[in-house]
This record gives sequence, C-alpha cells and structure tokens, in this order.
Amino acid sequence: MLATVIHAPRDIRVDTVADPVLSTGGDAIVKVVAACVCGSDLWPYRGITPTHEPHRIGHEFVGVVEAVGADVAAVAVGDFVIAPFYVCDNTCANCRNGVSTSCLNGGWWGGDDRLGAFADGGQGERVRVPLADGTLVVVPGPIADDEVPGLLALSDVMGTGHHAAVSAGIAPGDSVAVVGDGAVGLCAIIAAKRLGATTIIAMSRHPERQALAQRFGATHVVAERGDEGITRVQELTGGIGADRVLECVGTKESMDQAIRSTRPGGMVGYVGAPNGGPELPVRPLFNRNVGVNGGIAPVRGYIEELLPDVRSGAIEPGLVFDLELPLTDVAEAYAAMDERRAIKVLLRP
Amino acid sequence: MLATVIHAPRDIRVDTVADPVLSTGGDAIVKVVAACVCGSDLWPYRGITPTHEPHRIGHEFVGVVEAVGADVAAVAVGDFVIAPFYVCDNTCANCRNGVSTSCLNGGWWGGDDRLGAFADGGQGERVRVPLADGTLVVVPGPIADDEVPGLLALSDVMGTGHHAAVSAGIAPGDSVAVVGDGAVGLCAIIAAKRLGATTIIAMSRHPERQALAQRFGATHVVAERGDEGITRVQELTGGIGADRVLECVGTKESMDQAIRSTRPGGMVGYVGAPNGGPELPVRPLFNRNVGVNGGIAPVRGYIEELLPDVRSGAIEPGLVFDLELPLTDVAEAYAAMDERRAIKVLLRP
Repeated sequence: MLATVIHAPRDIRVDTVADPVLSTGGDAIVKVVAACVCGSDLWPYRGITPTHEPHRIGHEFVGVVEAVGADVAAVAVGDFVIAPFYVCDNTCANCRNGVSTSCLNGGWWGGDDRLGAFADGGQGERVRVPLADGTLVVVPGPIADDEVPGLLALSDVMGTGHHAAVSAGIAPGDSVAVVGDGAVGLCAIIAAKRLGATTIIAMSRHPERQALAQRFGATHVVAERGDEGITRVQELTGGIGADRVLECVGTKESMDQAIRSTRPGGMVGYVGAPNGGPELPVRPLFNRNVGVNGGIAPVRGYIEELLPDVRSGAIEPGLVFDLELPLTDVAEAYAAMDERRAIKVLLRP
Repeated sequence: MLATVIHAPRDIRVDTVADPVLSTGGDAIVKVVAACVCGSDLWPYRGITPTHEPHRIGHEFVGVVEAVGADVAAVAVGDFVIAPFYVCDNTCANCRNGVSTSCLNGGWWGGDDRLGAFADGGQGERVRVPLADGTLVVVPGPIADDEVPGLLALSDVMGTGHHAAVSAGIAPGDSVAVVGDGAVGLCAIIAAKRLGATTIIAMSRHPERQALAQRFGATHVVAERGDEGITRVQELTGGIGADRVLECVGTKESMDQAIRSTRPGGMVGYVGAPNGGPELPVRPLFNRNVGVNGGIAPVRGYIEELLPDVRSGAIEPGLVFDLELPLTDVAEAYAAMDERRAIKVLLRP
C-alpha cells in the first residue's frame, strides 16, 4: 500500500510499504478515508526535531474498519471511525480521569515502545490500530462526503481547541482572548463560543483567518502583538485583561502574550506544544494569580460530546481545511502548510 | 508608641515611633490586640531581600478600632477587627473578581506608593488602616481571649492555606498532598479536609509538625523528599499521583516536588512566594496535563467564609501559634522562627 514517509527535513514522500496486518487480538485495520497534516508534523519537516532515519508520519485520520482482531467488541467491519491522534485503552486510571493522552497502556502513531509493536502513521492508505476498542469512535452511518472534514477535525484540532477552553475554565459570560490563528486557535474560538463566552478576541494578523475567526464566533480581532496587543485586549475587557486566554501556538512569545493578556485571577488554557520548552515565568503568574492549565489534549474523551454539534452543523470545524489534495501530493501539502499558504490540508488516499 | 523596626539583617528592634493619625476620611486607627511574624518577614531578616534603610515591618494583626475617618461606614470605634495582610477597597473590578491582592487602589503594610501615604507595619501598638471599609472585617463581640489566635490566623495563614486548596480545585473525595509543614502548609491541610479531601498526605520530617498535621486532618505523613517522596505519594494514590498538590514553600525544590507528585490531569495550587523566582518547567506540566494555579492569596475575601468555622471550633488554625511573646521580645520571636524553634510566634503589645 501507499503511505507517507519522511526521509529528511523537507524530503517527504509517498512510498510503497507493507500492508498492515492484525497482530494482536485488540487490533483493527482501518482503510483511511481522509487524513491531514498537523502543525506538529512541520517540526520534523523543518528539521526542528531530528529525523534520524526514514519513518512513517501522520496522526489524524478517519476511515472505515476493514478487519478486527478476535478481542475487539466495540468496533465492527464496515464501521466509519474517527481515530484520535494517539492510542489509548480508555479504561486505565488516567483515561478514567479524562487524561487519555497519559493512558498507562497507550502510545503514539508512528511507533512507540509501550505498544510492543509498530503502529502505523496516519497519512497512508491503511492503518493498524492497536487497542481499537479504546481508541476508535464509531460514527453511525450513513456518512455524507461533505461531513468528512468536520469529522476529521475531531481527530485533533477541534478537540484540542476545546481542551484549551476547558482547561482555562471558560464559563458563560466570560471574556476570552485566543492567541494563535492556526487550525487549533480557530477551533478554540468555536469552543469558547460553544461554552458561552460573550467577548471573544481573536489575535490574528491574516485577513482570511480573521474572517474565519469571526465566522466561528470572534467578537473582536486584535492584529497587534506584544505590549500593544495586551493594551488592546485590556481596552476590550474593562482595563484588566481577559478572564480566560487560550494559548494555541507554543512559543515563548505566544505564552508571554497569553499570560500578560490575562486578568488577575484569570487562567491561561494552553495546548500549543512548547516548541523548544520555554519555561513559564513564575512571578508574573504568582503576583497576579494567573493560572496555567492544559497540555497534550485528551481529544478521545471529547469526541462523543462534540460529535452531535458537528453533525448538526451547529459548529463547523471542517472549515479549517482550506486545501484538499490527493495523498500522492503529500509533499505539496506539507509545503503549503509550511509556507502558510493553507491553514490545514486534507489528504484523500 | 512602640512598633517593630528592622534596621538591618538580624537587627530587629522595638522602637518608639510617632503615633498614627487619621490622614484620609477612609482611615481607621486600630489598637493592636495581637500580631505575628510571617515566614516572609524572615526574608529581610535573613538578608535575602535587602534592607536599604530602617523600616517598619509586620502585616498580620487583629485589634480594636480606636478612631475612624469621616467617610468610614462599615467599621466603628470599639469594633474588634481582623486585618488581612494587605489593604484593599473591596469594590474595584479585581476585588469583585475575588483577587483583592490585585486591588486597583490597594497596597501593602509598611508603605506603598499607591496609598499616597505611609501605611504602618502590623507589629506595633497601633496601626493606621487606609481604606478601612474595604480592608477590615468586624468580628461581632464579645471576643474571648482564647479566640484571638484563631482570629489572627485569618489575617494570613489560614486564608493562604485555603487559597492553595481553592486554587487547586479540591473537590470531595480528592487525594491531596501538601508540600511544606510551616503554618501555611498546616492550614492547607485544614482547608483540604474542610473541602472534602479524603486522602491527605502531609510531607513533613518534623515530629511535632507531623502530629499537628494529623490533628488537622492528614491521613498520611511522608517524610521522604525528592524521588523517594514522589514514589511514596504514588503508592498512596493508586500509582498515579495525587489529584491535587498544595505547594506552600516557594523554592525550586518544593515546586518540583509538587509538580511531580501530581497525577496526570491534576492541579498544583501554590501559595509559597517564589523565593528567587524559579521558573516553572513547562514540559513536565504540558506532557502530563498538570496545571499550576495560585499566587498571593486574596485572604480578605475568605475571612467571612472561614470565620464561623473558626469561632465554632470546627477548625483550629490558631494552634499553629506555638509560641507567644510580648511585643518587646520581637527579636526573640524572629530568632525562634528563623531557627525553626517555633512554627509561628504570636506577639502581644
């Protein structure tokens, strides 16, 4: 079958690889209907994280179950399924606590020791899914083709934006600022509105992203950054800062923007993977009672909650996909994301 | 009158100073019944924060109102009052949001620009209290003498321990670990029990503090620190760590202990003033979805809630005072705290 393999920075290809096979009783084989490229896939693409040898890549996909192991009970051949960006049993103590990204038995697409076997990357024709009962969420059919982008968004970006909002503790009537206008930041705006925020400030300098932010529920757009951006947020929030700020980038600058845009006693919800591991400055947090909460989003646990709103059209996270390409054009997909010509690229095998 | 003045590190004296006078319509003059020494008072005492010139010190006291300005409405001559460790109007946007330590018009005992005039330190015979209506909380009389320690604890340590617990989001049934066995850590144990935690782990190596921790509600004591301490906490919490951890020290080591003792998805509530400003390590927080929340405790807003339980004896924070001295022995009070011969010293003018 065909699957995406990263060979080196900026050398990403669709290669012929071995077909996946059931290797444990808990596996499923999923034929991919759609996959996509994540902002974090750009780290090895850009060489920020090293690629020591060619390896499979991709961790967001939806598809149809082709085969299941003998122990699989919750998923059947023919089911349309959403896969979160990681593998989990959904039964361990951490999963029960709502933190399935810390599953005691889980792992990551593309290979992880804890799984005892290679787990495929998501950007391919088929994927072997370990712990299929815990990992996959069945979407009752029939599935219209135009539903696919919205369902695919539940594999990562919509749940991740929602996690930022939940981690920040958004309550009805809150003022919220969102730092980052990528797919996650835009989905965080959807989540903030859905949880009842009434002032939603999108921090964005890109006209087309500003427009999507407003369609998703942003009440204000702030193009300024740094001290000017903070002043603008304060002007929109009674002079004190936003009740909740959602940090969806992961750089030192974006976290600084988020912390200083938050009012005393407010909370930063952060889901931007800390690129380069900037430490959090404790004094600006402590002196103003600004909290920081979030992390690798446990999106598996959010899919059932968000799915009805996606299917009804009440929320439209599928709109973050502004470019669709065949899987064989994966190199162009990465380039378009890298050069910010696309917010997020959907791939069809 | 007599009041405590710090002249230099380890040179702390009771000096004769000018009597306070009403200087704004919103002032009150309070005759101090009892004051105390705070762990943070030890910073200038130890020379960790510099003393450029002799200045008044102390920020925790209870007393009786002797005089009020023309604009004071909520406090009257003869009232027994608790003063929090700062001054606030209790009406600004930050106060209304529950963060009176960020009061837009408030300030700190011992002098602060925002007040426009010198505010006395608390370790003296009398104190001028600016913004008296917002700052002071009246305790209906009569006040028995043995109630004084418990009421004095509400000026700082009990409310600060409670803030750690509230910031960590303790809910009934939670497992909680408390890092720090000073007066604040011990009060945090009281707060954790009061909010319904059922497993409460006191991290302490001092037998007499362990005993008080258990009287206050600790179900387990862990004397180990570092990796061994974390292992012990995990053993007591199903292998994953405590739901909530209360950090009541403020050093890099204590914060590391707190973060790594917290289960994935849990929260650190911190009130230990960051001594030397250690930064928070983002990766151990992000990767495990451990949040950090807290800061300078807005104790003014907690006094009314906690007061009935103190007066009924349901909670006994006054027990943290294990040494009582006359104000004139203030040098010995600081030495006893510095040498950890006393948990907390109560001073009587």
